[in-house]
Amino acid sequence: MTQSFHPNERTLMGPGPSDVNPRILEAMSRPTIGHLDPQFIGLMDELKELIQYAFQTQNRLTLPVSAPGSAGMEACFVNLVEPGDKVVICQNGVFGGRMKENVERIGATAVMVEDEWGKAVDVAKAEEALKANPDAKILAFVHAETSTGALSDAEALCKLAQQHDCLTIVDTVTSLGGSPLKVDEWGIDAIYSGTQKCLSCTPGISPVSFSEKAVEVISNRKTKVQSWFLDMNLVMGYWGEGAKRAYHHTAPINALYALHEALVILKEEGLENAWARHQQHHKALAAGVEAMGLSFVVDAKDRLPQLNAVTIPEGVDEAAVRSTLLQKYNLEIGAGLGALAGKVWRIGLMGYACNQTNVLLCLGALDAVLTSMKAPINSGVAVNAALDIYG
Amino acid sequence: MTQSFHPNERTLMGPGPSDVNPRILEAMSRPTIGHLDPQFIGLMDELKELIQYAFQTQNRLTLPVSAPGSAGMEACFVNLVEPGDKVVICQNGVFGGRMKENVERIGATAVMVEDEWGKAVDVAKAEEALKANPDAKILAFVHAETSTGALSDAEALCKLAQQHDCLTIVDTVTSLGGSPLKVDEWGIDAIYSGTQKCLSCTPGISPVSFSEKAVEVISNRKTKVQSWFLDMNLVMGYWGEGAKRAYHHTAPINALYALHEALVILKEEGLENAWARHQQHHKALAAGVEAMGLSFVVDAKDRLPQLNAVTIPEGVDEAAVRSTLLQKYNLEIGAGLGALAGKVWRIGLMGYACNQTNVLLCLGALDAVLTSMKAPINSGVAVNAALDIYG
Repeated sequence: MTQSFHPNERTLMGPGPSDVNPRILEAMSRPTIGHLDPQFIGLMDELKELIQYAFQTQNRLTLPVSAPGSAGMEACFVNLVEPGDKVVICQNGVFGGRMKENVERIGATAVMVEDEWGKAVDVAKAEEALKANPDAKILAFVHAETSTGALSDAEALCKLAQQHDCLTIVDTVTSLGGSPLKVDEWGIDAIYSGTQKCLSCTPGISPVSFSEKAVEVISNRKTKVQSWFLDMNLVMGYWGEGAKRAYHHTAPINALYALHEALVILKEEGLENAWARHQQHHKALAAGVEAMGLSFVVDAKDRLPQLNAVTIPEGVDEAAVRSTLLQKYNLEIGAGLGALAGKVWRIGLMGYACNQTNVLLCLGALDAVLTSMKAPINSGVAVNAALDIYG
Repeated sequence: MTQSFHPNERTLMGPGPSDVNPRILEAMSRPTIGHLDPQFIGLMDELKELIQYAFQTQNRLTLPVSAPGSAGMEACFVNLVEPGDKVVICQNGVFGGRMKENVERIGATAVMVEDEWGKAVDVAKAEEALKANPDAKILAFVHAETSTGALSDAEALCKLAQQHDCLTIVDTVTSLGGSPLKVDEWGIDAIYSGTQKCLSCTPGISPVSFSEKAVEVISNRKTKVQSWFLDMNLVMGYWGEGAKRAYHHTAPINALYALHEALVILKEEGLENAWARHQQHHKALAAGVEAMGLSFVVDAKDRLPQLNAVTIPEGVDEAAVRSTLLQKYNLEIGAGLGALAGKVWRIGLMGYACNQTNVLLCLGALDAVLTSMKAPINSGVAVNAALDIYG
């Protein structure tokens, strides 16, 4: 007979999920109530405000999609894009490619602007593409590429899109809560994120938000949204204003308890403090990594503090390193993805996991494992280099 | 500052979510691990076997969709239906209408076979429709209509579909774990369910399964599946056989811990025992309801034990009754939906919530509230009528 499942306690320093704050796990295990219960309606109102805070927006259409970030991406595309539309997509990693899949499955045209993996999106190239495609309806890009650790200039890209009368769709799965992000100030029209990165919540939910301009576009579509489940015209009826909520689908009650608690924690800390904390521990990690002699894929100025893509030393079996870290230290770091598969490790410093203990554990364990494998690194110096930063 | 959320402990006897077994809440709050962690891969293998057991199938393509039942429905339709296809849908409640929405948003044709709300699907009418539409590719219907409490003869409908060379898509959101359901024996091709009904798990996940014939149709599509997130050709890469799992989207780790525990509990009890338990407590509830002088929407022979649609006595403010039950007894029962809105209450007896204590609480509380409102019922007899059944 199959038994109950009891996982090890891991330290999660991969590309997400990240370590979940025990307060969030506890919140998630509170008694389930109905999705139309007045208490739950109250929770929904608070959740909306908390997501607005995290996104720095007043957008009315702000809510958690009842599925992971990939579904949040799809929600943005299927609601704003109609068959025959043209979308300019800046791709500098895996997730731009996924945007292309979304656009093409709607029967729309994706104009790809390719940047090297590990570089930030080149604003000048995006401008060229918009000039060459005056009929483009939307500019889409990834703010923080989880596959490479590159941060792009969302503010400049949004300004550019506005100059060309384009809406913007922005992937902030990895940036939300870890890097500065200001939806209203920057003028983002549609944004999606995930719960399992810098919010340190369990995976499975995708906060999204749409500007008034985007809502107008959704309300005036010529065709029905191709996904019934993700149709914001219908979802709005449940997540709309006030106590009158129309049933659309059953909300994932306990997962929303968890997200609520994650956002309460973020608000307690304060966004600016959270952003600063990610920078601080990234600096310490980077000092250790570089002291070992390893290097970063992304230039320092474009580097995400929460996602560190680090090159693998010559001749090392990278999978064996990850496997040993997991077995000996219960420590998870991530493999490379897409074009960087086999070439980098991705070390996450996200949300609750972004702390001094984890930085020192990661550096110490990586140093020890690489040294035991006789990898060409400077052994035994990483932890001290990080401690120097902490002072 | 927004505070942590602390819900009341409710007794959930609506149309779902139902009361969640505390073992499941505890399992859900175990430490999050990575979605590619070998321990998690082990959990996935077990989950697949457990869902196969619950569905009574050997289908290889059996997995939990990372979103609620509505997304499970959409997964079945967008994978099997292509633009221009014809689908015969038997509608006898709200959820058949949702199937129509799904089919039409694919650019396919829905041929509707309408049955009265509260009746089982009429197999003879379905046969007429299939004869009149020899080009139909799929027959779709709801096994257990959550909006009315009617159970349809899935075995007969599947046999009929096979005679007409049609695939079947079957909604078992409310039947799974509560009523006999045998995917392989009946020859169901695509099936979806939910976690928050008779599995007594938290809402948010949708178990699905596809026959070999259905997998072949999905593999040989002329067009790409319109949803990237729900594309089984891609999802299979992650949920496929063995240890080699390709990343598609981040699985909702803790929600899957919960579903695993729910299915372990179901297997411990045994499917047949669970089905019998639902019948037993339904009989007691029905005796009490009828002793009060209230009646059922659905004929006894087609009645779902887990979803009891009960008519509202003349002159009673039905919303006030539900509100009082919630406030005074922390008891949730459901309102009517669609054509039955304002005409019935829906009393759920699902999974963990299907027990003697809940039956007696519900009858006693309903009796007391209706009596206090001077409703035209036989007061003070309901609980004893149920106790007579328990003997």
